[in-house]
Amino acid sequence: MKLDFNITIVGLGLIGGSYAMALKELNPKNLWGIDVDLKAIETAEDLEIIDKGYKEAEVPLSESDIVIISLYPEAAIEFIKKHKNDFKRGAVITDTSGIKESIVKEVSAFIPDYVDFIGGHPMAGRESKGLAFASKDIFKNANYIITPSNKNKKENIELVKSIAEGIGCKNVVLIDAEIHDKIIAYTSAIPHIIAVALMNCDNFDKERGYFIGGSFRDATRVALINPDLWSELFISNKENILKEIEEFENNLSTMKEAIKNEDSTLMKEIFNKAGSKRRKLNSNE
Amino acid sequence: MKLDFNITIVGLGLIGGSYAMALKELNPKNLWGIDVDLKAIETAEDLEIIDKGYKEAEVPLSESDIVIISLYPEAAIEFIKKHKNDFKRGAVITDTSGIKESIVKEVSAFIPDYVDFIGGHPMAGRESKGLAFASKDIFKNANYIITPSNKNKKENIELVKSIAEGIGCKNVVLIDAEIHDKIIAYTSAIPHIIAVALMNCDNFDKERGYFIGGSFRDATRVALINPDLWSELFISNKENILKEIEEFENNLSTMKEAIKNEDSTLMKEIFNKAGSKRRKLNSNE
Repeated sequence: MKLDFNITIVGLGLIGGSYAMALKELNPKNLWGIDVDLKAIETAEDLEIIDKGYKEAEVPLSESDIVIISLYPEAAIEFIKKHKNDFKRGAVITDTSGIKESIVKEVSAFIPDYVDFIGGHPMAGRESKGLAFASKDIFKNANYIITPSNKNKKENIELVKSIAEGIGCKNVVLIDAEIHDKIIAYTSAIPHIIAVALMNCDNFDKERGYFIGGSFRDATRVALINPDLWSELFISNKENILKEIEEFENNLSTMKEAIKNEDSTLMKEIFNKAGSKRRKLNSNE
Repeated sequence: MKLDFNITIVGLGLIGGSYAMALKELNPKNLWGIDVDLKAIETAEDLEIIDKGYKEAEVPLSESDIVIISLYPEAAIEFIKKHKNDFKRGAVITDTSGIKESIVKEVSAFIPDYVDFIGGHPMAGRESKGLAFASKDIFKNANYIITPSNKNKKENIELVKSIAEGIGCKNVVLIDAEIHDKIIAYTSAIPHIIAVALMNCDNFDKERGYFIGGSFRDATRVALINPDLWSELFISNKENILKEIEEFENNLSTMKEAIKNEDSTLMKEIFNKAGSKRRKLNSNE
C-alpha cells in the first residue's frame, strides 16, 4: 500500500518502536517520533527507525496527517489533552492501548472537531518493554481491533484499517469500545491475573523445579508482568475484570466441590465441556 | 547402557508405547507388551515396538526381570493385585502414574517380599492418548521422579534410575511419595484445573476469537484434558489439591480486592513478586 502521509509515533517503546519499524516498510512521506526520553529518540534515529525524533510535540504534530499514540492509557489521554490544539486540521489520531472505552470517551469529550480520534488496539506484544525489543514483525498475523465511535469519519476508519493490514495484521476487527473492554477482560486480563496468582502460591527450591512441566510454564508465562502497564489496565477496566474474576471463581468452586465429593461424573462433564470449547478455539485459528 | 533384561510394558498407550520405543534403543533381552486391546498389541508388534504382545499376563510376567506398569492409577493397582503371584522372583516393578502415595502404599501392602515395587513418574506426556501418538522422544530432557519406599532395594532403585536416564531423561529425582503428591498438586493439578475453569467461563462466537492472544492460549492449552485420567488423579490426590486450590483462591481474592480498591501499589507489589519468581523459574531450566 502507498502511505503517502506524514506520520508521527508518540512513545518509542516496544509497541511504538515496532509500529514505526513496520510503517517504514510502507514508505510514508515522513515518519517522526515523539518521546520524553532523549536516549530513545537518539537510538530510533540512529537505527533509522524514524526520520527524526522530537522531545517537544508541537512541530511534528502540526504537520502530521496521522498520529499514533503508543503510550500507556493515562499518559495517552494526558498527551492528547495537553496537545489538543496542536494537531493538524484533518489529522487522524489513533492509539494502541489495551482498553478502549475510557480513552475513546474521554478524548472525544475534549478533542476539536477538525481532528478524528479513532480507538485502536493491536493485539500484539512481548513480555518485555522498550525499544530494544521492538520488531517490525510483532504485528505479523496479529489481530487488530478498531473501536469506532459515531464521531469517526468512514474514510478515516478505512485508513486505520489499511494501516493495520499494511503492517501485517491478519484480522482487523471493528467493534464497539464497550464490548471490546468486556471481552478483553476475559481473554487478556484474567490469564494475566491467573498467572500471577498461581506463581505467588509457592516458593521454589531446587527440588520443586523438577516438577515443573509444560502446563505450569504455560499457565505462568505472563507472570513476568509489566507492573505499571497492567495496574493501569486493570484499574481502567475494573468492573468488567471483577465480573470475570467472579465467574472464574465460580467455576473453580464447582470444580472444588466435585473433587471434594469425588464426583467423577461431574468432573468428566466439566472436562468434556472445556475440551470441546478448546478444540473449537483451535479451529478458529 | 546395556539393558540385558526381559522387560514387560503393561499398557500400550501413549506412555507405555513411548516407553517401549525408547527402551528398544537400549537393546533389552526381550521386550514384551501386555494390553487388553488386541488392536494395540497387533499395532505394537507390526511396528516392532515390542517383540511380542500378550492379552494374558501370566506368561510374560513369569519371565520378566523388569515390569513397567503404564496404566491409570486404579487400573495399575488392580493389575498388580490380580497378578501379585505371577511375577518372577526378584523382579523390579515400577509404574508411571501421576500420583504416588496411594499406589506405593497400597501395593506395598499386598506385594510379595520377593518382588520390588518402586513408584515412578516420568514427567512427560502429550495432550493426546493412545499408541498412535507414542514417540521415543517424549522423555528427552524430561524429568523423572522416583519415590522409593523403605522396602526398596538400593540396587533396584539404581536400576530404575539408569533406565530413566537411558530413555533420555535429563533429571532423575528421588523423593518421598507423600512430598511428590503435595508438589504435583501445585505444579500439575492446579494448572489443569485453571485451564478448564477458564475455558468454561464463556462461549465463543467468531468475534471473541479475534481477542484471543498468546496469554489465553497458553493458559488454556491443557483444557483439552483427558477426562478419565484426570478425574482419577484429582480424586487420588484430593486433600493436597483442595489445599492448593484454596491457596490459589486466596491469591485471586487478594488481587480482586486490590483491583476493587484501585490499589495500584499493592498490585505492583504482587506483580513484582510473581515476576521475580517466574524469572527464577527460567533460570532453573
